[in-house]
Order: sequence, then C-alpha cells, then structure tokens
Amino acid sequence: MQSRYYTIHEHPQGLPSRELFALEQRELGALAEGEVRVRNVWLSVDPYMRGRMDGVTTYIDPFVLGEPLEGGAVGEVMESRDARFQIGDKVRHMAGWRDIAQLPAEQVEPLPNFDVPEQAYLGVLGMPGTTAWVGLNVIAGMQKGDNVLVSAAGGAVGSLAVQLARANGGTVVGIAGDPKKLAWLESKGVKAVSYKDKSAAELSKALKEACPEGFDVYYENVGGDCLEAALNNLRVGARIAVCGMIARYNDDAPAAGPGNLAMILIRRARMQGFIVFDHWEHHTDFVNAFGPRVASGEIDYQETVKEGLESLPDAFLGLFSGSNQGKMLVKL
Amino acid sequence: MQSRYYTIHEHPQGLPSRELFALEQRELGALAEGEVRVRNVWLSVDPYMRGRMDGVTTYIDPFVLGEPLEGGAVGEVMESRDARFQIGDKVRHMAGWRDIAQLPAEQVEPLPNFDVPEQAYLGVLGMPGTTAWVGLNVIAGMQKGDNVLVSAAGGAVGSLAVQLARANGGTVVGIAGDPKKLAWLESKGVKAVSYKDKSAAELSKALKEACPEGFDVYYENVGGDCLEAALNNLRVGARIAVCGMIARYNDDAPAAGPGNLAMILIRRARMQGFIVFDHWEHHTDFVNAFGPRVASGEIDYQETVKEGLESLPDAFLGLFSGSNQGKMLVKL
Repeated sequence: MQSRYYTIHEHPQGLPSRELFALEQRELGALAEGEVRVRNVWLSVDPYMRGRMDGVTTYIDPFVLGEPLEGGAVGEVMESRDARFQIGDKVRHMAGWRDIAQLPAEQVEPLPNFDVPEQAYLGVLGMPGTTAWVGLNVIAGMQKGDNVLVSAAGGAVGSLAVQLARANGGTVVGIAGDPKKLAWLESKGVKAVSYKDKSAAELSKALKEACPEGFDVYYENVGGDCLEAALNNLRVGARIAVCGMIARYNDDAPAAGPGNLAMILIRRARMQGFIVFDHWEHHTDFVNAFGPRVASGEIDYQETVKEGLESLPDAFLGLFSGSNQGKMLVKL
Repeated sequence: MQSRYYTIHEHPQGLPSRELFALEQRELGALAEGEVRVRNVWLSVDPYMRGRMDGVTTYIDPFVLGEPLEGGAVGEVMESRDARFQIGDKVRHMAGWRDIAQLPAEQVEPLPNFDVPEQAYLGVLGMPGTTAWVGLNVIAGMQKGDNVLVSAAGGAVGSLAVQLARANGGTVVGIAGDPKKLAWLESKGVKAVSYKDKSAAELSKALKEACPEGFDVYYENVGGDCLEAALNNLRVGARIAVCGMIARYNDDAPAAGPGNLAMILIRRARMQGFIVFDHWEHHTDFVNAFGPRVASGEIDYQETVKEGLESLPDAFLGLFSGSNQGKMLVKL
C-alpha cells in the first residue's frame, strides 16, 4: 500500500514558497499488531504548523525534514490490528498531510456521535473550538458581562470565540479585514472593526468608538498593530489570552513590539500565552457541552474547503493572507 | 502654623527639570476634630510618583497642580484631636513632600514595634518591601527552587526581591549597572549581570550564561532592553511580575517595545502588571513575617539618605539616574 504525503526538505525563511512542499510517496510496511490504517478524508491546515517548520523546538516539536508533515485529520479505518477499531470506523488523529495514514491505535480517537458533519471534529468541535473555549474560560477567566475583543475574528478560532463571548452578555468586538468576515460578524451581533488601511493609532481609535468602556478580555490571535491598539483599550484588571501572533509567524527578523506595553502595568493587566495541547483535559467536557449546540445549529461555524491532496500547500499558505473564512480544510 | 511643601504648576514632558518643583508655604488651618498634625522626619521618594505628575489617571490619581505633592512619610505627632494618637507618637502616612502634615487620623498609622530604625517603615518594611513580597509571592506565584531574575536589582524593591528569592533555593540573577550594586549583589549570593554598554542581544546572552536553564520568574522593574533580554530566557510556564518600567517613565513618545513578545506564547508565559496598593491586605502579614528578620539583621537593606527639605527634588530625580542604592530617603 502506497501513501502519498507532503514533506519539506529545508527550513523556510519568512513566508514559505509553494515550492517548499514536496509531494512524495512511500510504501507502507505491513500493519503491525496494535496498529490501524486510515484512509484520510479531511485534512486540517492551521497557522501553528508554520512554527513547526522552523526546525527549533518552540511549544511543539519541529517537523523532521524529509518525513511526512503532521496535522489533524479525519478518516475511515481501512484495516485494523487493534480490537478497539473495526473497518469503516470514523476516526480522528494527527497523521495528516497524507492520503493513507498508518499509526498505533492509541494515537487514534473514534469520532463522537453528535449529529454534525464529520469534519466538524477538525474545527468547531476539534482543536480550534477547544482553543477558543480554553482561551476565554481557562486562560482569560471570562466572567458574565465582560467586554471581549477578539482579533482574527473571522478565522477558525476567532469566529467561535466571538460566539462564545456573545453568549456571555457583554459587548463583543471583532477585528477582521475581509468585508465578508466583517458582515458575518455584524450578523452575529458582534461589533466589527476592520484593520485594513489603519495605523495602530487609528485602529485604537476605532476600538474605542466600538467599546468606549474598554475591554475586560482580549483574545489575541494576531500580534502587531492589533495588540498595540488593544493595549490602549484595556480596562483595569483586563486579561489577554495569547493564542497566536500570526502577524509575526513569517517574519524573517523580529519586528519592533508595541510601544505601549507599559499599559500592562497601568491597567494591571495579565497577559498569558497558551497552547491548547497543554489544556487538552478540557476537550471532552468542551465537546459534550458544545456538541449539542453545534448539532442544533445554534453555533454558526464556517468552513473553507479545498479539494484534493494537491491543494494542501495552497490551503495552508492561504491562512496567512486571510483567504479562509472559518476553518480551512482540505477534502480528499 | 506654617507648612512648607513642594508642588508642581505644570505637567512635565520627559524627565522633569529641577525647576519643576516649587517649594511653597501655607498657613495650616486650626486642627479640626478627628485630625492630627505631624512633624515629618523622613520623606520617601519613589519612581511611581513620576506617573502621578502627568495629570492623567493611570493606576493612581494624578497630583493636583498647585497642591502639595504626596508620598510616604514617617514623623511624630505634634498635636492630636483624635483619641487614637498622642503627642510624640511615631506614625506613617502619605502626606509627604512637606515638613508639617495635617490630616484625618484614619489616614495615619502608628508604627509597629520591631527593633528597627523608624525609616525602615518607608523601605524594607514599607511600600517597597511589600511590593517585593507581593510581586514574587502573589503575582508571580514563586515556588521553591524557582530560578528568579530581578531587574533594577540594586534598587529599593529589587534589593529586597533578590533576598526573598535567594531564600527560596533556585538560581537568582540580578541586573544592575553601578559597580557597587553589582558587588553588593554578589556578596548576597546573587549572580550579578551589568546592563551597561550592552545591547538587548548582548544582555540576553549574559543572562543565558548566568542561568542556562532559564528563569521561572522575572521580577520586572525596568522595561526596555531588560524585558527583551528576559523574554529570551524564560522557561516554559514562566511568570513575569511587572512592578515598574522605569526605563519608560520619562519617555516623551512611546519607544518601540520588545520585538520578541511572541516568547510569551512560545514559552506559555504569564505577564501581569500590578500596583501594591491593590494588594495592601497582605501588608500586615508581610510586616509580621518579615519584621523579625529585618530586626535580626538577616535581611540586608540599604538606604541613600539626603538631608533637608531642599534636597527633595534632587533625591527624586536621582532615582532615574540610578544614583540611589536601595531606598532613597530624605531626612528633615
């Protein structure tokens, strides 16, 4: 059995080029006792993967040059040498960026039984959903009535964070760039602010207009000017959950940081970086609480779907130009 | 009865000039029921006072132009119309920057009875000591064995923070500039690193040499290059207590912040600004726990004493050139 997969042969500088990603093929070994073989149907691409391409250990192990890249995937069991899985079972695992995955059964999870499309377990009920929930509730300690600001609010994580925050009663403001994303935010009762063609000072002013009392919680996905503008609009005791700083992921050299970091002191604010994998113990509770709300249609989630293994690199690169609305997925 | 006091008649830009501070005099009204009159003996000058000169509410109310400046003071009751205070009582209060203070008795505290010089209640057993203790224990959640980095480690707060951290068992590194401060740090078992003539990258390298495993706690008094260098040397899960950013207090315009703020995410670190007055409920516990250790000589604290009301502005301005070792005080 052949597996087709993507790999990289060098560490990129800045924004990766399309040519970085090599589509290769290898013969899978015979299935060993305790292993399963999965035909992947849905592949996830996520901004955090950029960090794994640098060859240095950051908050997650780097990708190994020449080996298949990794990422969330949903598929169907083709063959199993483990009693827990039968042929035809729908499963989720981290051996993405390939068509056929072969891996130990303990690295594979069966999909829960909510009435949702199977790819939801890569997005709204998967890593991005859990990330939104953990960031707001565990890291930022969101309270009833808190005013919440979310950057990249039209993205996979941000679009869920704004909806979770909306259910909480305070003013919710979302920063995005694309007009469709801005319109979607407004349709969900979120005050939408565009960062396009605005300096940090102008963005700061726009946030002040949207929420004059300031923010108790800032859900940070972006960094750069968004962070600077947010820092100017914090209430005393504000909490910042730093989920990502996508504006910086492809920098060749460090860009200067916000000049107003002293606002952390002035507003006695707390800023905390996190990665959802450190808090995965909340995942099951999250899915059980959130699954019925997704199944009922109460939670609106969006997907941008590219077709075929060949579209995978472009889907990934599209994350950095904001070409996705909601979760970016590749369907095989 | 006349009171001589300092005031300001305009809001300074950048580092205040000596001429900003006007020494004036006014007749005190008759002592009202519930008031006390205090002859100040020791006056405190502290970096946070600079923020109160800007005329904007930051974390504490601004000074009022034309009115006496405020600050910690220790003195002796001259006259009392409150049953709690008798003539000759030693007290502490916030009506400093003047020779004679008149204020409501509920704003005056009697000094505790530890065998320490009375001015210790403005330093090691006063606001700076409490600030060191709250920052390490309450804000940074210091644990046994933590490696701790302190900036402005020869200052009033930093010199106590390094000693509190030393008792905890991990590696303690202090950043300072003055050779005397560096020598004092080494004498206390603290690894001393000079920031002088070093870029942020060079300082970062020096910190790595002093503590290759990185820091669990960073006690931040400075901002600027110190913060940038510290961010490069955090362990996973590090906590930064932001007590001050003195490098920025006199900036006319915001300077660029650290270019490596994404380390907050990469190291899943927490950074929190605080002001000790929000946590004053810990003060009594702190004094009761720490007072005997100060009285026994176990805790080494330093003072820089200027004489006379006329020296007050220079004492204050000296804080920004690092001319103090330990607590800066003015004796009347």
